[in-house]
Amino acid sequence: MKQAILLFQAPDQQGIVHKITKFVLERKGNITELEQFVDNTNKKFFMRIVWQVENQNACATNIDTDFKPIASELSATFNTYCSDQIDRMALFCSATQHCMAEVLLEHAQGDLQLEIPLIISNSKKCEPLAKKFEIPFYFISTKTPQKEFEQQQLNLCKQNKIDFIALARYMKILSPEFVQQYPNKIINIHHSFLPSFIGNTPYQDAYNRGVKLIGATSHFVIPQLDEGPIIEQDVKRISHAFDTEELIAAGKEVEKRVFLYALKKYTQRKLMIDEGKVVVFE
Amino acid sequence: MKQAILLFQAPDQQGIVHKITKFVLERKGNITELEQFVDNTNKKFFMRIVWQVENQNACATNIDTDFKPIASELSATFNTYCSDQIDRMALFCSATQHCMAEVLLEHAQGDLQLEIPLIISNSKKCEPLAKKFEIPFYFISTKTPQKEFEQQQLNLCKQNKIDFIALARYMKILSPEFVQQYPNKIINIHHSFLPSFIGNTPYQDAYNRGVKLIGATSHFVIPQLDEGPIIEQDVKRISHAFDTEELIAAGKEVEKRVFLYALKKYTQRKLMIDEGKVVVFE
Amino acid sequence: MKQAILLFQAPDQQGIVHKITKFVLERKGNITELEQFVDNTNKKFFMRIVWQVENQNACATNIDTDFKPIASELSATFNTYCSDQIDRMALFCSATQHCMAEVLLEHAQGDLQLEIPLIISNSKKCEPLAKKFEIPFYFISTKTPQKEFEQQQLNLCKQNKIDFIALARYMKILSPEFVQQYPNKIINIHHSFLPSFIGNTPYQDAYNRGVKLIGATSHFVIPQLDEGPIIEQDVKRISHAFDTEELIAAGKEVEKRVFLYALKKYTQRKLMIDEGKVVVFE
Amino acid sequence: MKQAILLFQAPDQQGIVHKITKFVLERKGNITELEQFVDNTNKKFFMRIVWQVENQNACATNIDTDFKPIASELSATFNTYCSDQIDRMALFCSATQHCMAEVLLEHAQGDLQLEIPLIISNSKKCEPLAKKFEIPFYFISTKTPQKEFEQQQLNLCKQNKIDFIALARYMKILSPEFVQQYPNKIINIHHSFLPSFIGNTPYQDAYNRGVKLIGATSHFVIPQLDEGPIIEQDVKRISHAFDTEELIAAGKEVEKRVFLYALKKYTQRKLMIDEGKVVVFE
Repeated sequence: MKQAILLFQAPDQQGIVHKITKFVLERKGNITELEQFVDNTNKKFFMRIVWQVENQNACATNIDTDFKPIASELSATFNTYCSDQIDRMALFCSATQHCMAEVLLEHAQGDLQLEIPLIISNSKKCEPLAKKFEIPFYFISTKTPQKEFEQQQLNLCKQNKIDFIALARYMKILSPEFVQQYPNKIINIHHSFLPSFIGNTPYQDAYNRGVKLIGATSHFVIPQLDEGPIIEQDVKRISHAFDTEELIAAGKEVEKRVFLYALKKYTQRKLMIDEGKVVVFE
Repeated sequence: MKQAILLFQAPDQQGIVHKITKFVLERKGNITELEQFVDNTNKKFFMRIVWQVENQNACATNIDTDFKPIASELSATFNTYCSDQIDRMALFCSATQHCMAEVLLEHAQGDLQLEIPLIISNSKKCEPLAKKFEIPFYFISTKTPQKEFEQQQLNLCKQNKIDFIALARYMKILSPEFVQQYPNKIINIHHSFLPSFIGNTPYQDAYNRGVKLIGATSHFVIPQLDEGPIIEQDVKRISHAFDTEELIAAGKEVEKRVFLYALKKYTQRKLMIDEGKVVVFE
Repeated sequence: MKQAILLFQAPDQQGIVHKITKFVLERKGNITELEQFVDNTNKKFFMRIVWQVENQNACATNIDTDFKPIASELSATFNTYCSDQIDRMALFCSATQHCMAEVLLEHAQGDLQLEIPLIISNSKKCEPLAKKFEIPFYFISTKTPQKEFEQQQLNLCKQNKIDFIALARYMKILSPEFVQQYPNKIINIHHSFLPSFIGNTPYQDAYNRGVKLIGATSHFVIPQLDEGPIIEQDVKRISHAFDTEELIAAGKEVEKRVFLYALKKYTQRKLMIDEGKVVVFE
Repeated sequence: MKQAILLFQAPDQQGIVHKITKFVLERKGNITELEQFVDNTNKKFFMRIVWQVENQNACATNIDTDFKPIASELSATFNTYCSDQIDRMALFCSATQHCMAEVLLEHAQGDLQLEIPLIISNSKKCEPLAKKFEIPFYFISTKTPQKEFEQQQLNLCKQNKIDFIALARYMKILSPEFVQQYPNKIINIHHSFLPSFIGNTPYQDAYNRGVKLIGATSHFVIPQLDEGPIIEQDVKRISHAFDTEELIAAGKEVEKRVFLYALKKYTQRKLMIDEGKVVVFE
């Protein structure tokens, strides 16, 4: 049965929940999920609410239009979705393929509700894996000048009507110009527990510092490297006996898990951004 | 600032949240926390809602009376609390004292919002610790006949206006009659990951089975031993190298942690019971 | 550089390490890994020792012969391996494919040091995945009489010189006769934290009991169902809000992780069995 | 039964284990624990070996003398201990008392094998807790000039024959001069997952960055703030809903756990330092 999803944020004030539930009730919606969060520090109210829509044609577009006056009254910003909208995701990859592979496998098994119209890579090594899962693959040589490189990427994304981009251990920094084309719509997996070990040799750095846990962080990409809003993090216990190679091997599992978690939450419309931080609904 | 807390459950139906938030709005309450859960299997709706009350005299009692008609209309059961109500907890202990000690320490440091008017034990070994934390201590000899033993316990609890009971590794089984005096108001810590290793030698059983994680479970007590609704569980990694004594030592930390978590959630009015299971609000 | 691996167990006694290291030293071996474990309860000594062999032809076979007198003297049992020996593993699968898929993916990426000469399944659903990874696939219908079914399995394993068998959520019980053909050489993944929820509906049982963590267990198969020596276990936090379907989905990741861990430890010759329990070397 | 403990490190070379076990065997010692680690990056060998000594008078001192020639031959450094030697630990505390309290409680319950001859604090708030556990308490005012302050600390430690110092959330930076008096003998608990959030407001910094896990790190103190060799780290999941105060509250449990773990490993002679990192034996 089709469901409508509303993500909502506004200055905190009395009566918000009441107004929104009235809106749902007037449409004979049955609320199946409702989660709210009040950011007391910044006096902001966040809500995710899901309801079964009676009129199957009325999902999302109509709701969006109808809700505008209420949002305006509450000085709110919001987004509406219908549970049958499926996002189109571009996968950007480099030579290290475990995150890419995990996404393709989960997708093939029906555990990721999205379409993957294309894979773009700066490494030809990814091609066999893309073929195995029958996803169109585009190689762009790292020798291509940066501007042209990104223009090609952008064209491919536009042509394929990409909704958001997943960087599966993509080891090429995106320019601020590119990032601005997909604001809060690019998700990266970084192979450390941020803000520890920013940069491109986190396992080497972790080895040098002698940490007892290694981690991974999935975050939205902003122009500042590795500083975007964090969606999910996790860690894994290691010991003094791990050299850098072993840290890299041990970290794969955490990276895959954290990355997938972030992509799932994103496709489930469970992420909102608040002051450079991510509200993650259950 | 005083807050009202409402715990609510009813058959799932349209318009519940709307009705409840209307009730709050009419009292000029500002909602600070709202969490709901729909048990789709059993078609039941659960909610915990907290709001700042404008009229400081109106907390809890008045609300309770005023809310009755709404509850009745929705075929709901509910409880109301005021944030300044502090529960009175009896601590039941035996010779093994780490859970008792942790509770007393957290309480002394102001990290547990409750009063501990008394400790009851079937072991005199607990007395020095009770004294250290200046809590009245009552010893009842295990030689006392069961009926008399429990009558003494009950009298002490009644005299001290006890709201709920915490069994801190209390190694004496409570009779169904006693349990019925405090329905869903007795919290136990069991030293295994239930339903594994029911009974009184869980670490020995864990050793024999060769498990790779040991655990602890905090649950409400019902007449059936170790089968009450589970509030919280956690585990800790161990290895083949742990003998039974080492498992016992390693488990202490998990038991303390899980027990404290359950007591805190209880005092924060964040637990509801649903078909033998516990809804734990964030 | 080639390495010799010795797994050793004997009644605990003075001088064992000295004798074994003497043996290595006489062969000019450089010890790279040494781990021992004394089971004090049963007075048994376990050791895993790895050394670089000088003479590249002398690995494993020679060592095995040379070591026999020492083992005999110490009343020990032992196994020797050469680091370049690669086990041949049969993968047994049913309709639920996430564990099978993870193994194939890790194998394809070079992260599992073994060969997979064949997949045997009682479900045709697995065939496309087997094909994707180019592994020979054999379907045996569940309508085949049990004896004949197992005979076919056995023949396929023998013809393919299978060293050990991995049951990737294989939902068919193996007869004691079959199990005895591969003693301590069949590894299963069970979708619960054993000994909780033995049987074939562990997630349903976990839902009914209201546990707060779900788990997975990888173990050697013995004739008694779900009672074999445990290699690895792990858990994942869930909440009251998960219905059975969601528990199943959430559990996939833990099952995959635990299963892979067990297979890796097995192929690294890091598992020994002690009184129905598994010694897992680091 | 008394046990001898040897911590040993040397350039990696053939025959080390053989030589050491020969030494033990000549003394009719029965090895109960043996763990080794080869740092392949730096070609260094580390070992911890424990054996039951036959002659109860021969523990530690004699061994130390007897072992010197072997150590010299192998260019090794080493330390020997007898299992009945109990370290004397000074506890340094400030106003935040949960770590101090946990150490005192564990100590009182017999779960920490050490003596605590004194507590030194720059806050009088700690005095009641010290008294509760009957440990001599010394207050040094923060108004005392730095040099004099540290001289008083040092005098107290010397007078009390202190072996090592535990900083239980001690919020005063020790001078390099003081640190050098107890090289690798001062253990601190830092309230973040180092190297993230160095400095004295880690929870505020964690809040600002929007991390999804908070952590704690126990480390040896060196003159460079928060850069000493890491003994242990752990983390705890938090969410966007935690404000700074809630992060502080949630972190207490991790800090206590990590700090205790480090102190226990230290007193069990299971820590060795290798190139600014800590080898932690099981």
